Amino acid sequence: MRMTKHTAVLQVLICILLISLNGYSQEHPNLILTKDGVQKIRAELGNAPLFDATLAKVKAEVDAEIALGIETPIPKDYSGGYTHERHKRNFLILQKAGVLYQILNDEKYALYIKDMLFQYEGMYKDLPVHPQTRSYARGKLFWQCLNDSNWLVYVSQAYDCVYNYLTKKERKQLEKNLFRPFADYISIENPQFYNRVHNHSTWGNAAVGMIGLVMNDEELIHRALYGIEDDGLPIGAKDNDGGFIKVEGQEVGFLANVNEPFSPEGYYTEGPYYQRYAMYPFLIFAEALHNVKPDVKIFEYKDSVLLKSVEVLIKLSDADGEFFPLNDAQKGMSYKSREVVTALDIAYHYGGHNPELLSIAEEQGQVLLDDSGLAVALGIRDGKAKKFQKKSINLTDGAKGNEGGVGILRYGNEDMTLVYKYAAQGLSHGHYDKLSFSLYEKGTEILQDYGLARFVNIEQKGGGNYLKENTTWAKQTIAHNTLVQNETSHFGGKYEVGSKHHSELYFFDDSNPEVQIVSAKETNAYPGTEMQRTMALIKTDGFEKPFLLDILKVVSKTENQYDLPFYFKGQVMQTNFDFTTPKTLEAWGSANGYQHLWTEGIGSPKEDNTKLSWLENGHFYTLTTTSSKDDDLRFVRIGANDPEFNLRRDAGLVIRRKNTQNTTFVSVIESHGNYSPVSEFSVNSNSAISKIELMSDTNEYTSVLIETKSNGEQLVLVVANINKQKDKEHTITINGKEYRWTGPYKFIKVK
Amino acid sequence: MRMTKHTAVLQVLICILLISLNGYSQEHPNLILTKDGVQKIRAELGNAPLFDATLAKVKAEVDAEIALGIETPIPKDYSGGYTHERHKRNFLILQKAGVLYQILNDEKYALYIKDMLFQYEGMYKDLPVHPQTRSYARGKLFWQCLNDSNWLVYVSQAYDCVYNYLTKKERKQLEKNLFRPFADYISIENPQFYNRVHNHSTWGNAAVGMIGLVMNDEELIHRALYGIEDDGLPIGAKDNDGGFIKVEGQEVGFLANVNEPFSPEGYYTEGPYYQRYAMYPFLIFAEALHNVKPDVKIFEYKDSVLLKSVEVLIKLSDADGEFFPLNDAQKGMSYKSREVVTALDIAYHYGGHNPELLSIAEEQGQVLLDDSGLAVALGIRDGKAKKFQKKSINLTDGAKGNEGGVGILRYGNEDMTLVYKYAAQGLSHGHYDKLSFSLYEKGTEILQDYGLARFVNIEQKGGGNYLKENTTWAKQTIAHNTLVQNETSHFGGKYEVGSKHHSELYFFDDSNPEVQIVSAKETNAYPGTEMQRTMALIKTDGFEKPFLLDILKVVSKTENQYDLPFYFKGQVMQTNFDFTTPKTLEAWGSANGYQHLWTEGIGSPKEDNTKLSWLENGHFYTLTTTSSKDDDLRFVRIGANDPEFNLRRDAGLVIRRKNTQNTTFVSVIESHGNYSPVSEFSVNSNSAISKIELMSDTNEYTSVLIETKSNGEQLVLVVANINKQKDKEHTITINGKEYRWTGPYKFIKVK
Repeated sequence: MRMTKHTAVLQVLICILLISLNGYSQEHPNLILTKDGVQKIRAELGNAPLFDATLAKVKAEVDAEIALGIETPIPKDYSGGYTHERHKRNFLILQKAGVLYQILNDEKYALYIKDMLFQYEGMYKDLPVHPQTRSYARGKLFWQCLNDSNWLVYVSQAYDCVYNYLTKKERKQLEKNLFRPFADYISIENPQFYNRVHNHSTWGNAAVGMIGLVMNDEELIHRALYGIEDDGLPIGAKDNDGGFIKVEGQEVGFLANVNEPFSPEGYYTEGPYYQRYAMYPFLIFAEALHNVKPDVKIFEYKDSVLLKSVEVLIKLSDADGEFFPLNDAQKGMSYKSREVVTALDIAYHYGGHNPELLSIAEEQGQVLLDDSGLAVALGIRDGKAKKFQKKSINLTDGAKGNEGGVGILRYGNEDMTLVYKYAAQGLSHGHYDKLSFSLYEKGTEILQDYGLARFVNIEQKGGGNYLKENTTWAKQTIAHNTLVQNETSHFGGKYEVGSKHHSELYFFDDSNPEVQIVSAKETNAYPGTEMQRTMALIKTDGFEKPFLLDILKVVSKTENQYDLPFYFKGQVMQTNFDFTTPKTLEAWGSANGYQHLWTEGIGSPKEDNTKLSWLENGHFYTLTTTSSKDDDLRFVRIGANDPEFNLRRDAGLVIRRKNTQNTTFVSVIESHGNYSPVSEFSVNSNSAISKIELMSDTNEYTSVLIETKSNGEQLVLVVANINKQKDKEHTITINGKEYRWTGPYKFIKVK
Repeated sequence: MRMTKHTAVLQVLICILLISLNGYSQEHPNLILTKDGVQKIRAELGNAPLFDATLAKVKAEVDAEIALGIETPIPKDYSGGYTHERHKRNFLILQKAGVLYQILNDEKYALYIKDMLFQYEGMYKDLPVHPQTRSYARGKLFWQCLNDSNWLVYVSQAYDCVYNYLTKKERKQLEKNLFRPFADYISIENPQFYNRVHNHSTWGNAAVGMIGLVMNDEELIHRALYGIEDDGLPIGAKDNDGGFIKVEGQEVGFLANVNEPFSPEGYYTEGPYYQRYAMYPFLIFAEALHNVKPDVKIFEYKDSVLLKSVEVLIKLSDADGEFFPLNDAQKGMSYKSREVVTALDIAYHYGGHNPELLSIAEEQGQVLLDDSGLAVALGIRDGKAKKFQKKSINLTDGAKGNEGGVGILRYGNEDMTLVYKYAAQGLSHGHYDKLSFSLYEKGTEILQDYGLARFVNIEQKGGGNYLKENTTWAKQTIAHNTLVQNETSHFGGKYEVGSKHHSELYFFDDSNPEVQIVSAKETNAYPGTEMQRTMALIKTDGFEKPFLLDILKVVSKTENQYDLPFYFKGQVMQTNFDFTTPKTLEAWGSANGYQHLWTEGIGSPKEDNTKLSWLENGHFYTLTTTSSKDDDLRFVRIGANDPEFNLRRDAGLVIRRKNTQNTTFVSVIESHGNYSPVSEFSVNSNSAISKIELMSDTNEYTSVLIETKSNGEQLVLVVANINKQKDKEHTITINGKEYRWTGPYKFIKVK
């Protein structure tokens, strides 16, 4: 037996051993559906509108598939291709058919499952490894073990639903020829896939665990929870996304995958897009463990982190419910996805019936067809739903919550949202951007994070897989709204280096809704250079809406060239500087993402402040930033060296400051006014700021001033750069005027 | 007295003379509101929800303005600037305040109007011509007479509402110092603005006529209806948009402006964007004439064309109610605009209470605060609304309906809509594109018409006026989905030439909803070259959705270079041809719009068919087109030579066929499948077509074949190019097979 350092893990282990020694026999279904639960569901049919509606939809979908007949083609394609999509559809339908069989007690669903399972059984025995070779862990039904694991997670549920419908002999045949070898293939035969801390492994662990629970196979259950003891993998091996497979001292298995990537509050280090993806195996296997092995107390594990993480995931979305695209993330993914339906229903049911989750379930418009989904539907029916309040929040990263984090500042009813990333690398799906940010007005991106370069499951685009532009563009620092030094990415774009570091929170304060502020420091991205970025969301008189104040202080041991991009979306309205637009467009650079940027215009500051206004989605926006006279101001357009049109033609303005050692960029982004193409009224189309100024900037203190046009009011923010103690008193004199305050910063209306 | 050739006009004239000889005295209000109407409105208050809601909103808006106080600044700015927007807001509020005074009988509104009118009176007397000089007809309150006319159209209504509130002496003072000189200034002193057939003049005529009706000033009324008799303008003069001011034999005045730009069905030659703009003065003045001078029978004039035109305007919109951007048109303008609210309510009330108009009024969410708006609100309240059915329709252009037209083919519930333009020039707002088209799926543009290059009323962008790129890009033929010969625009881009010509309808047949077809010819765009373009919207087995078949036949006396662009929106998914993307982007050409196109990629056909697939708004689209092996296939991106970022960075694929005399382009555009970033399912992402072929092509007949992938079915369309008689029998032999049919075309499923 393998000993661990963690008492919690040990306790779980002992429980399982005790249970398995008892050797009690199981009734079915008991995995996701339970015998009691099914009785309760049947009793409520017709009385829980959202459940009934989901059931009707699922029934129509499955009936249509049954009418089409069963197809289990020989595996051939990448994702997006026919065989991939067919097998994917099969496992989704099998799971649903199982549920229908239990709830509706109609044998046709059981028969359909049985027939398809035996078709798979007949095929799997002799199936070679999938012919497509791109994956570091090729599957059999699919091009990668990951998708094979998806299959088994879903099909285990179907198997559980028809377990008692099948004869003992039939079960034996399926388990011997299909399920057991399937589970072994994705685990023992592919430890480089199975034995990691990674969303891939979470799927693999859950798959092995769930079929183990149905088969009552303690060996598989143990392998699911704790991984493979002796995997023979070399330390430092990498997958085809460049992620580490094995790190020295790495714990593995499902529990390790709960322990490591989640911070104590429930932030998942890969970011919300992959958290969403992983939530399904995390929560569905947890529900199964809860049902079959209640003594594991999985929902209480690591201070209930799995339940917490569901609410965190929802908080990581914009006003339309779309996830912030931190790290690799396909834009448009939202909490309406099927994975989050599952996670949310389970979190509601097993997490204390938080009524705010019900309003999200209403938006999702569907529920799980199990006990938890019924609970949600009944809660909604009984009018218990409350609006989910997305407030400002600071989320730590890292298993212990000490590896940086993500700060989210929200004003009003998500009227304006800042997403500020000072996190850890985020495993192999991480991007090289520290102290970067994106800004939203409701569900509209104002300053964007590019997201990933991939068209998930669209076969025409590189088999639906990551495109090379994901590495050459999307992951690079210049693709993000943060500082680039000497045209190189943070950590030299090296995963090994980036994985060792994270930024540090300096302070976060959302106690005053009119002046919310977050500050963080990064000292490792460029050795010898220290960056501190302080961002504040401020609403005050003279401004129609809150504005974002951005102070980026750079202190270096050497002279460097600094680039600070702002990827605005929309149409340029006005600048206060002159620029020329070249007759021919050339790529700005040759590496680190610069090779993908066309230079569309180039100019230099005319005044102490540089201004750019643009119009997007019926709103006007203005960036005002302090300038040095030698700055270059460059309009860029994404899309150079993009031979297959994989990139969007989005725009940015990059401020370049050359031959500079220490400098501080001060910028304000305002949203103001509106324009409607129907009324053709243009309202409040100008910035409210007459000037911004870096008033003083020392090692210890940085102070900035914002002056408004309407009433000449002066707003000052002073930041103590070294001592952040809340009770520390500060006194400084700026331009002959003394400022006194307590704590790491002070916002003052001077006039 | 001026004699005309038209009996109708003469009758109207006699009526007016008779009425004015009677010299009866008027009661007020009588222009838009009437004494009886106001009584009826007051009686229904609280019982007509949409009317009540509009009233509440208008009251809140006007009350807020009254609280802010009256401002009538000295005119200074272009549109978008402060003085412009302030005076514009004033006239809108004055009109509303008048209505509130009448309906709510609250003197504060009358007092507000009186005070503001006297402020204008005090200012206007000594007001010089507006300081901004860009217009061919500068106003006094605004930079152009057009906006001054807007002011008077609205303010006349306010004046009518407070007419009896004012003393005779006050009225005399206002009329002497403000209204009469105002009316004279925009007419007698600016005949180049007033005495035209143009939307400008319509506003001018209506302004003069409406104040004339309130003042009971027969001279002004006559001037409104028939223009200025002796304007002293030279024949051939042009305005600053390049439009003709005076043409030989031109009739002028309001009635001429009803006669000329409207076709008999009610299509307005400038296109729907400007029709929408002109609808307000057309309909509001018509309503006023109807109320004050019922004997004019304005709503019956020219076979009730004004009433018809309102329904036509609605039919010229996509599924979201946004107008097709034919000619100069700002995208996003829709039938929810205030002008169309006015036009629709009046058309409903005076046009026989068409219940389909009520469903549009519901979408508009507001009504006019007068008799007609009340009628609409009561109709909706009483459940009379029916869905407005937008069907396929062929609209002729030209006063007599013999100057080409616009064909619209719709499938299903606006699931797919073709907009095919074979119209006349469309006056000064016309673009140089004959036989061009755009394609919509519901409210989404699939292949777009660029629209105009202007940001209406946004001061930052060239004062909100037309940008030079409107001339150099948006009006040019290459900016449209139609044929360009030798890199020159149709008619050499010359307005004088284009204005003399129009395309000719060959046939239009929407009798079979599964095969709808329109064909037109153009022989003047390039002298010596004849084009015939036949477009069919076809829904048949093997296709998920209807597809568009496009056959463009070109016959020339000389060898030429032909360019055929397709401006697709969205992300390139796949091509079946190889192309290279240049290291630097260069403008394609130096003139006629080509200077605004970057060459983003260039290739040549690999097979007999060229295919391009793209993804937009969650749908896949594929263009399949027959290729000649020497064709160039060029990906273009709009935005070269655009020093102020005035243009959108949209994409296109252009097929270039060089050194060719006669040729026929055959293309199919399919919409297929879907992709959701939430489910990440990619469904039916491939074209259903295995090949298309030009089977035969002679002077007399063109036949094309489409073969489907799923079942190898062959679809054939044969077009008789010369004889379009419906009862004509045709027989031809293609590839040894005989085809017989009657009429101009035949669609056949071969296998």
